[in-house]
Amino acid sequence: MTDFSRLLAERTGSMKASEIRELLKYASVPGVISFAGGLPNPESFPVGGLKKITDKILTEKGTKALQYGTTEGIPELREAIAKRMSELKGFDAKMENITIMSGSQQALDLLGKLYMEPGKVAIVEGPTYLAALGAFRPYGGEIVGVRMDEDGLDTNLLEETMKKLKAEGKVVPFIYTIPTFQNPSGVTMSEERRKHLLEIAAEHDVIVVEDDPYGELRYAGKELPNLKAMDKDGRVVYFGTVSKILAPGLRTGWIIGDEEIIGKFVIAKQAADLCTNTLSQHIIAEAFSSGMVDAHIPEIRKLYSRKRNLMLDMLEDSMPEGVTWTKPEGGMFLWVWVPESINTKEMFPTALEKKVAYVIGEAFYPDRSVKNAMRLNFTYSSDEEIKDGVKRLADTIRDYL
Amino acid sequence: MTDFSRLLAERTGSMKASEIRELLKYASVPGVISFAGGLPNPESFPVGGLKKITDKILTEKGTKALQYGTTEGIPELREAIAKRMSELKGFDAKMENITIMSGSQQALDLLGKLYMEPGKVAIVEGPTYLAALGAFRPYGGEIVGVRMDEDGLDTNLLEETMKKLKAEGKVVPFIYTIPTFQNPSGVTMSEERRKHLLEIAAEHDVIVVEDDPYGELRYAGKELPNLKAMDKDGRVVYFGTVSKILAPGLRTGWIIGDEEIIGKFVIAKQAADLCTNTLSQHIIAEAFSSGMVDAHIPEIRKLYSRKRNLMLDMLEDSMPEGVTWTKPEGGMFLWVWVPESINTKEMFPTALEKKVAYVIGEAFYPDRSVKNAMRLNFTYSSDEEIKDGVKRLADTIRDYL
Repeated sequence: MTDFSRLLAERTGSMKASEIRELLKYASVPGVISFAGGLPNPESFPVGGLKKITDKILTEKGTKALQYGTTEGIPELREAIAKRMSELKGFDAKMENITIMSGSQQALDLLGKLYMEPGKVAIVEGPTYLAALGAFRPYGGEIVGVRMDEDGLDTNLLEETMKKLKAEGKVVPFIYTIPTFQNPSGVTMSEERRKHLLEIAAEHDVIVVEDDPYGELRYAGKELPNLKAMDKDGRVVYFGTVSKILAPGLRTGWIIGDEEIIGKFVIAKQAADLCTNTLSQHIIAEAFSSGMVDAHIPEIRKLYSRKRNLMLDMLEDSMPEGVTWTKPEGGMFLWVWVPESINTKEMFPTALEKKVAYVIGEAFYPDRSVKNAMRLNFTYSSDEEIKDGVKRLADTIRDYL
Repeated sequence: MTDFSRLLAERTGSMKASEIRELLKYASVPGVISFAGGLPNPESFPVGGLKKITDKILTEKGTKALQYGTTEGIPELREAIAKRMSELKGFDAKMENITIMSGSQQALDLLGKLYMEPGKVAIVEGPTYLAALGAFRPYGGEIVGVRMDEDGLDTNLLEETMKKLKAEGKVVPFIYTIPTFQNPSGVTMSEERRKHLLEIAAEHDVIVVEDDPYGELRYAGKELPNLKAMDKDGRVVYFGTVSKILAPGLRTGWIIGDEEIIGKFVIAKQAADLCTNTLSQHIIAEAFSSGMVDAHIPEIRKLYSRKRNLMLDMLEDSMPEGVTWTKPEGGMFLWVWVPESINTKEMFPTALEKKVAYVIGEAFYPDRSVKNAMRLNFTYSSDEEIKDGVKRLADTIRDYL
């Protein structure tokens, strides 16, 4: 038997199956209530509406919807997004500022491909989106996580970090943030911090990447301006997606930004997959322009808001002293801090014995420096599962203490 | 105005907009007959059948078809492909040997990501598929094209090249070939050469990548065994796609190979886009398992065979002395050699004046060493356009000589 692994490129050493993915294998054992996943609740998919639209698309422009499209994406969709984001969020964006991606994950991959290499440092939040780390790593360079608190990324720490890296001669190409209802923490960056972040980015003249998959899923509190809406010099690149407001199986996202930056993503995307699924693009363009998406989002908010409240109530009722958690105003996740004596990775087998699963917190830090935290998803499980699952988790922590 | 291009990684220097893409801009000028594209003919899309299937999928398993899927792809599709390729082509493949890609282009990108880096040499055919060059280049290393003749890749030359590279201490991770109805040449590799290629690959213990988007589109001659069907030690990785037998807008392809190699592609794909469009995967699984694809392919063959014959007849009738061309037994492209005194890139503006477009041959060679050739697509244009277009092209050459 020959061993083809000797032919692999060195960069594959940093490419590993996601930890969540491995954990999910255990979590799918029958009887285990899993708060580990990141899937939207299928109840939230507007199946009937999408069926009608798909039928219309295949009837009215079937051959067009089944043909290759341009790498940038179909004009109908780019225009619909430009219009919607200008009206809804005050973006100064035209079709030319938008290119369609095969999901936001592709945008993360291409961001790494375009800007990361040995000697470069990507700034992310600590904790940050796990799959962003997986996307950036193969391209070389370092990833530095800047800690967050209840107001989001600590921008004073960011300022220090940027100065320190500059003094070391390191080049930071971008700061990657999920400012609104962050994955994994559920935290939203305050308006003041948003301003400060943009000031720091301007001072160091780096790109800011605003990943915003959850921004439209607000259940409490007041709307905050997007970084992209506050952007004066075209340094914010915005990542959007239909995965959480329509359906993730359509694998469609988009980036909005400075035309020159967008042009680089288009060239990178051409080599990566030529173009995004044309049928899905036509379906989504129609879903936006017909008003279907806007009519549907309140339904998702209603469903998820109830589940969020239920999980917060259950945590309040069940958790032992010394356990704290974030109170997300939207999104899909919340973050639990357990006493410092507990390592949630070491506790994981105990949780599985109690038939409940979470994602260990350390996975979300580039340097894995935080051991006493976990991420919980509150949108996927049934109400019963949320009730029982939080109790099991509280029992786990109590037993383990 | 700030200049963000200073933040780009060095590898972006090798990332350029495809030449075909740039040419196509001119080719879409009204009145120009373009043989430059590579699009399937939309007449070949089974719109009605796909509409019925899509309706069935959204009715029977809508939420499943709209949810995230596993990175490997949905089991229904992987099983349908394993069954079909075993029965049709004699592959020894199970579901575990298959992972779904967002089109074959993604397979090319991940092939580069997994195996290419400085010091490595990818072996390709000269000429080869343009977008394969674009996919490999950003990952570093060299690309060496081994010349083809009317029997496909010249395996004696390949043997010499492999020995030479070995002597130079260079590592070749894979040999990339499109053995059947090649893009751009239209040439099919003989059975003897296929055997020889596999012997050389075994001797040097490298991977063989068989890219086979056109294999089912045969209009003449006898069926030849796929490299994958002749593969005894799991070194052939096979790339398949629905783009030419169903619809490219569904952006779905697959790779078939040794489980360990497939596992590496799965990890790479996870960071690249998480999973392929789930709705498309369900549609395609049903299109395969219901027999719809098999019933439809003869229709495509009939349409394209007529267009191929027409273009070959027109070339025979119109071309001046000294011009030769390949006679493809299938696929979508043929290759034209003009007298050595003509540089087809320099002739291109003249062709546009005559209102006809092609792709310049040199773009398909990694070293751009061939100047007197062009690729023509015979599947997209109407019969009238083929007649007029070939005449215009013959006039162009005659005038230019």
